[in-house]
Amino acid sequence: MPLEKRLFSEFIGTAGLLIVVVGSGIMGESLAKGNDAIALLANSLATGAGLFALIQTFGPISGAHFNPAVSFVEYLWKRLTLLELGAYGIAQVIGGITGVWITHLMFGQDLLQLSQHDRGELRFFGSEVVATGGLILVIALSGKRNVDTTPMAIALYIVSAYWCTSSTSFANPAVTIARSLTNTFSGILWTSAPGFIVAQAIGALAAYWVAGKFTKTQLEEL
Amino acid sequence: MPLEKRLFSEFIGTAGLLIVVVGSGIMGESLAKGNDAIALLANSLATGAGLFALIQTFGPISGAHFNPAVSFVEYLWKRLTLLELGAYGIAQVIGGITGVWITHLMFGQDLLQLSQHDRGELRFFGSEVVATGGLILVIALSGKRNVDTTPMAIALYIVSAYWCTSSTSFANPAVTIARSLTNTFSGILWTSAPGFIVAQAIGALAAYWVAGKFTKTQLEEL
Amino acid sequence: MPLEKRLFSEFIGTAGLLIVVVGSGIMGESLAKGNDAIALLANSLATGAGLFALIQTFGPISGAHFNPAVSFVEYLWKRLTLLELGAYGIAQVIGGITGVWITHLMFGQDLLQLSQHDRGELRFFGSEVVATGGLILVIALSGKRNVDTTPMAIALYIVSAYWCTSSTSFANPAVTIARSLTNTFSGILWTSAPGFIVAQAIGALAAYWVAGKFTKTQLEEL
Amino acid sequence: MPLEKRLFSEFIGTAGLLIVVVGSGIMGESLAKGNDAIALLANSLATGAGLFALIQTFGPISGAHFNPAVSFVEYLWKRLTLLELGAYGIAQVIGGITGVWITHLMFGQDLLQLSQHDRGELRFFGSEVVATGGLILVIALSGKRNVDTTPMAIALYIVSAYWCTSSTSFANPAVTIARSLTNTFSGILWTSAPGFIVAQAIGALAAYWVAGKFTKTQLEEL
Repeated sequence: MPLEKRLFSEFIGTAGLLIVVVGSGIMGESLAKGNDAIALLANSLATGAGLFALIQTFGPISGAHFNPAVSFVEYLWKRLTLLELGAYGIAQVIGGITGVWITHLMFGQDLLQLSQHDRGELRFFGSEVVATGGLILVIALSGKRNVDTTPMAIALYIVSAYWCTSSTSFANPAVTIARSLTNTFSGILWTSAPGFIVAQAIGALAAYWVAGKFTKTQLEEL
Repeated sequence: MPLEKRLFSEFIGTAGLLIVVVGSGIMGESLAKGNDAIALLANSLATGAGLFALIQTFGPISGAHFNPAVSFVEYLWKRLTLLELGAYGIAQVIGGITGVWITHLMFGQDLLQLSQHDRGELRFFGSEVVATGGLILVIALSGKRNVDTTPMAIALYIVSAYWCTSSTSFANPAVTIARSLTNTFSGILWTSAPGFIVAQAIGALAAYWVAGKFTKTQLEEL
Repeated sequence: MPLEKRLFSEFIGTAGLLIVVVGSGIMGESLAKGNDAIALLANSLATGAGLFALIQTFGPISGAHFNPAVSFVEYLWKRLTLLELGAYGIAQVIGGITGVWITHLMFGQDLLQLSQHDRGELRFFGSEVVATGGLILVIALSGKRNVDTTPMAIALYIVSAYWCTSSTSFANPAVTIARSLTNTFSGILWTSAPGFIVAQAIGALAAYWVAGKFTKTQLEEL
Repeated sequence: MPLEKRLFSEFIGTAGLLIVVVGSGIMGESLAKGNDAIALLANSLATGAGLFALIQTFGPISGAHFNPAVSFVEYLWKRLTLLELGAYGIAQVIGGITGVWITHLMFGQDLLQLSQHDRGELRFFGSEVVATGGLILVIALSGKRNVDTTPMAIALYIVSAYWCTSSTSFANPAVTIARSLTNTFSGILWTSAPGFIVAQAIGALAAYWVAGKFTKTQLEEL
C-alpha cells in the first residue's frame, strides 16, 4: 500500500478514535448528571467497541496504529523507516485534532477549546508508564499464536486500562495532544500533556525491552 | 439463494433489529426511572448484542443489510441490481415497521403511535453523516483480511456510535422510518426523518468514495 | 460420546446456567438497592457471559442445549431420538433445580422457595413466543457459514433478549420450572410457568418452520 | 521456552491481573460513591477485559495460568513437573503482591496495607468451591474443539462468576493472598484467606475429577 494511502488511513482512523473517546465522554457526562462511574462505564465501553471497529477497518491498510508510541515501537522493530515514523506521527496528530473538532461540531459546542482538567499529579505519570507499557506488550506479544486475536486483545486492554489506572490510560501522545483541545469529560490541561507524553515514551521503551526478552526473531506481521 | 428467500430474510432480520432497538429502549427507560445514561447503556449494549446475532443468523442468506443505505452501497459495488435494491429497501421498511408493532404488542402499548421526539437540530444531521459514513467504511474495509471479523466490527461500531454521535446514530433509513412510528425512548418525530435520511445518503456516498481510495478491485464478498 | 456422559454434561451445564441466572439476579438486586435497570444490566451481562463459557465447555460433549425447547427442535431435525429427547429433558430439569438450590446455599438463603413473582399477563406469553423463536433461528442458521460463531451469537442474543422482550426472555422450559423455585429477582410464580412453556413450544415450532424455508438439506452439525 | 522466561511471564501477567482487579475496584468504588452495583459492574467488566488481554499476551509464553490452582491441575495433567509447579506458584504470588503495590502507587495510596474486609462466612467457602471448580472445567474442556475460543471463555466466565457467586469468585490462591494486602474495594481480611485457599483446592480437585469423566486421552495443549 503506498505511503500516502497509509497516511490517509492513519488520519481517518485517529480522527475516528478521538470522535469515539471525546464524543462518548460528552454524551456520558451529559446523560449521567454527575454520576461519573456511569459516565466512565459508557466512555470506556464505547472506546473499546469503537477501537475494535477502527482496528479491523484500517488495520489491513496502515496497521491501525493511531498512536505515535505504537509507531515508534514499530520503528524500533524496523517495520517503519524514520521518515515513515515522522509522517505517521504527523498524520495521527492532525487526525486526532480533526476528530476533536468534528465532535465539537456534532455536539453543538465551540470548535476551539482548551481543557481546564488538570491531571498534573505525579502518580498520573506513573500510571501512564504502566498503561502505555501494557499496551505495547499486548501489541507485541498477543499475536504470536494467532494474529487475528490481537484487535480484540487491544480493545479489551483499553476498556480495562480506563478503570485500573489512575490516569484512565491515555497511553497515546496524539490522543493526549488532541484531548488538550476539548474542555469536556475527556480533556486534559495542556500543562499536563508533556509529562504524559514523556511517561508514555518511557512505558513504550520499557515494554519494548521486556518484549525483547520473549522473542528473538522478527515479530510476526500484525 | 432465490430473491424471495433473501427478501424474507431481510424482512425478518429488520423486524428483529427494530424489536431489539425499540424494545430495549422501552425496557431501559422504564427501569431506569429517569436515569438516561443507564437507559442508553442498556439500549446500546442490547442493540449491539442483538445486531451481532442477527447478522450471523441472516448474513449467509441475504447479506444481513437490514439497511437501505447499505443495500444502496452494495448496488454501487454492483453486488445488487437496481431491482434487487428496490426490493431489499421495501422488505427492510416493511420489516422495520412490523418489528415496531410486534414490540408494541409485547410491551402492552398502543399498536399505532407517532413519535413526539423532535430531533430536528442541524447538528443531528451532521451527526448522521458521520455515523452512516463510519458504518459504511467498517462494512467496506473490515473484511479485507478476514471477513469473519466483520459482524463483530459492525456490532461494536454501533455500540460506540450510540454514544459518540449527538444523534445516537440511526444510520439507517428503514430504522429511521420505523422509529418515527413509536412514541417511546427511541422514537423520532416524523418531521426530522427526511433530514436524517438525506444525511444518511450523504454519509454513505462519502464513505463509498473514501473506501474507493483504498481498494481498486472488486470488494471481497461479505 | 456415550449417552450417560452427554446427560451428565447437560445436567452440570444446566445447573451452571441456573447458578448464573439466579445468582447474578440475587447479587444484582442486592447491590442495586432498588435500581432495577442496573440489576438487569448485571443480570443480563452475567447471563450472556456465563452462557458463552458454558456452551464452549459442554458443547463438544452434549451439544450444550441446556434447554428442552432446543432439544425438541434437535429431535425434529433428527439429531436426537425420542428417547434421547426425553432423557435430555429430564437431565436439564433436574440440573436446573439443582443449580437453583446450589445458588440458595451459596447466598445463605432458604433451600426450598416458591416464587411470588407473578408474570401472568398475556403479553408476556407473546413475548416468550418471540424470544424462543428468535433463539431457535439463531441456533438453526447462525452456524451455516462458520459454526464457531454460533456460541457468541447465542450468548449475545440472550443479552439482547433480556432487554427487548417484556418477559425478559426465559425462552427455556427447564429454566422456567427451575426459576419457579426461587423467590428472588429472577423468580416466576408457578401459575405463570405452564403458559410460558406453551408459548416457548409455539415459538420453537414457528422458528423450526421458518428455518426450514431457508435450508432444505440436513443442518450442519453444531 | 526456557523456564526462567516462563516464570517472568507468569510474574508480569499475575502482576497485571492484580493491577486490573484492584485498580478497577478502587476506581469503581471511588466514582460510584456508594453504589456498589455500579462499582462491581466496572470491576467485573474491567477484570474480564483485562484478563482476556493478559491471556492472549502471555498464553503463548507460559500458558497464562496466573493462578496456582490452575498450575496445580496442569501438574495433575502432567503438563508441569512438581518443580515447575512450585516455581510457577512462587512467581504468581510474588507477581500478585507486586501488582497490588504498583496499583497503590498509581492511586496515591499507602504501599503497605492489610485488608479489613471480613469475608469469613461459611457460605463464601462453598462459593469458592463452585467458582474454582467452574473455572477449571472451562479451562479443561472449552478448548476441546477449538483452543482459540478458550481465552474468551475464561474471561467471560470470570465476568459471570463475579456476579453469580456470593464470594465474587476469587478462585485463585495467588489473587487471594495478594488481595489480603489491600484495604480497598477488592480486599480480603487475611484470616479469611486460608479458608478461601482450601476451598479453591477442593473445587480444583472436584473439577479435575469431573473433567476426567469426559476425556480419557491427554488433554489438548492449551
